[in-house]
Amino acid sequence: MIERIAILGTGLLGTSAGLALRAAGFNGQITGWNRSHDQANIALEMGALTAIAREPIAAARESQVVLLAMPIYATLDYMAQLSTALTPNHLVTDVGSTKRMIADSASKLFNLPNRAAFLPGHPMAGKERGGASLGDAHLFRGAVWLFTDDPKAQRSPQAIALIDSWRQWVAAMGARTLDLEAARHDELVAWVSHLPQFVSTALSALLEEEVGNAPELKDVGGRALREMTRLGASPYSMWRDIAHTNTDAVARALFALEQRLANLRENLRTPALRSEFDQANRFRRE
Amino acid sequence: MIERIAILGTGLLGTSAGLALRAAGFNGQITGWNRSHDQANIALEMGALTAIAREPIAAARESQVVLLAMPIYATLDYMAQLSTALTPNHLVTDVGSTKRMIADSASKLFNLPNRAAFLPGHPMAGKERGGASLGDAHLFRGAVWLFTDDPKAQRSPQAIALIDSWRQWVAAMGARTLDLEAARHDELVAWVSHLPQFVSTALSALLEEEVGNAPELKDVGGRALREMTRLGASPYSMWRDIAHTNTDAVARALFALEQRLANLRENLRTPALRSEFDQANRFRRE
Repeated sequence: MIERIAILGTGLLGTSAGLALRAAGFNGQITGWNRSHDQANIALEMGALTAIAREPIAAARESQVVLLAMPIYATLDYMAQLSTALTPNHLVTDVGSTKRMIADSASKLFNLPNRAAFLPGHPMAGKERGGASLGDAHLFRGAVWLFTDDPKAQRSPQAIALIDSWRQWVAAMGARTLDLEAARHDELVAWVSHLPQFVSTALSALLEEEVGNAPELKDVGGRALREMTRLGASPYSMWRDIAHTNTDAVARALFALEQRLANLRENLRTPALRSEFDQANRFRRE
Repeated sequence: MIERIAILGTGLLGTSAGLALRAAGFNGQITGWNRSHDQANIALEMGALTAIAREPIAAARESQVVLLAMPIYATLDYMAQLSTALTPNHLVTDVGSTKRMIADSASKLFNLPNRAAFLPGHPMAGKERGGASLGDAHLFRGAVWLFTDDPKAQRSPQAIALIDSWRQWVAAMGARTLDLEAARHDELVAWVSHLPQFVSTALSALLEEEVGNAPELKDVGGRALREMTRLGASPYSMWRDIAHTNTDAVARALFALEQRLANLRENLRTPALRSEFDQANRFRRE
């Protein structure tokens, strides 16, 4: 029943969503908009969009579902603008990597009588580099797409039907949906997503200092080193908003790892090293 | 000119070397021995060996080249036994992950008049799990195979020719050889190999504690988490000897990363985070 989607932000995730919707059989209208017109053009040429919008708010008004696919602070800005521009029969959803601030804003500005519906979303998929040209119809296959909806949301029957339909399209894109409370979401992703990223960044930066002047030595590390530093290529622009909007949970996770590494270091020659390997093995076994 | 090789230790690396030699066109005799007979049988069935030896020292005597493919302390034990059992026309080489102790032992027990030659080696290839059944003829393709030879070695012309020939077979297996001084080797691999392993172990063990009781939450992390914890499956038995024989260099690398993570944690909301990402990006770019 969704026939008109507006994708605001046609970077890696927005473009991939357009391509994945098409690949899953969505035959309606997908209007795209991006702050940089180039990225929208690439998404159009790749087949992720049926048209480029001149102006994002008008494009949102003309659609039934608006997908905000931009960094977190930009998402919050557009939420403020859209909340007064849309009707109770519109659904807005997003792909932001932290959900507490977005869910708070959704409860205040959307999901109320006479306001549009907002479903906070977060597909656990991405690449270490962004941009429309890396868009991939299979990006969400096998991934988990998290939602942190508000149980107190007040919505029109039309909006409720749009949410059901959007969840079905997410499943059709190959993702598995999982519902979480927003604060629990941010705590969880601090461990399973943000911590691995910041560790890879710190490891890559440290190795750049230690062996960066001897490129032939980098090859020595082989596959293990390449894997452990792949996320080191992730740009600051993608992670700044995450560091700013999930600071406490990320800091707790980092501190716990620092202590764990210190403990391992002090036990390189004691039987405690075996326990640490055994516990790590268990994580990979289950 | 090498026609008879003895592989002592037919785990992942020994079996892979046998398979890779065959795939590269080696048509001579490859006699294998393993403490556990099962592993030798698997290697034979996979085609990595032409025969199984009943006794390792006799098998070494009957070969021209002996490949020691076992943990570091076991390698040191067999070096002591082989040094008095072999002749100046034998070459012994190994695949141990740290080289200082092995190279020291080689200078004292081999590479002298009336003693066999020893070429310390270290292929930078492996898997997070060991065993003959994971043996792979392509394991060394594109990998770096390090040597830490002693410039003061005294060798017979026959041994020198065997070393040239072995280096050519290593290249034929698809590896790129690189020569390093042994102490420098151990320092380098502490950064590009041991540090990534111990970080992955600590991260996996920590996450087992945090989300291990909720298996569905592990999936949330997706590819990034899987990659960053893949090495968490590595067994203690493979890493104990490394931790014991390269303790100081590994401890220095771990301590440097602990400091780096603490610094990142304290700067999650400052511009220093951008510098850290930029430096990490440089490591991946070069």
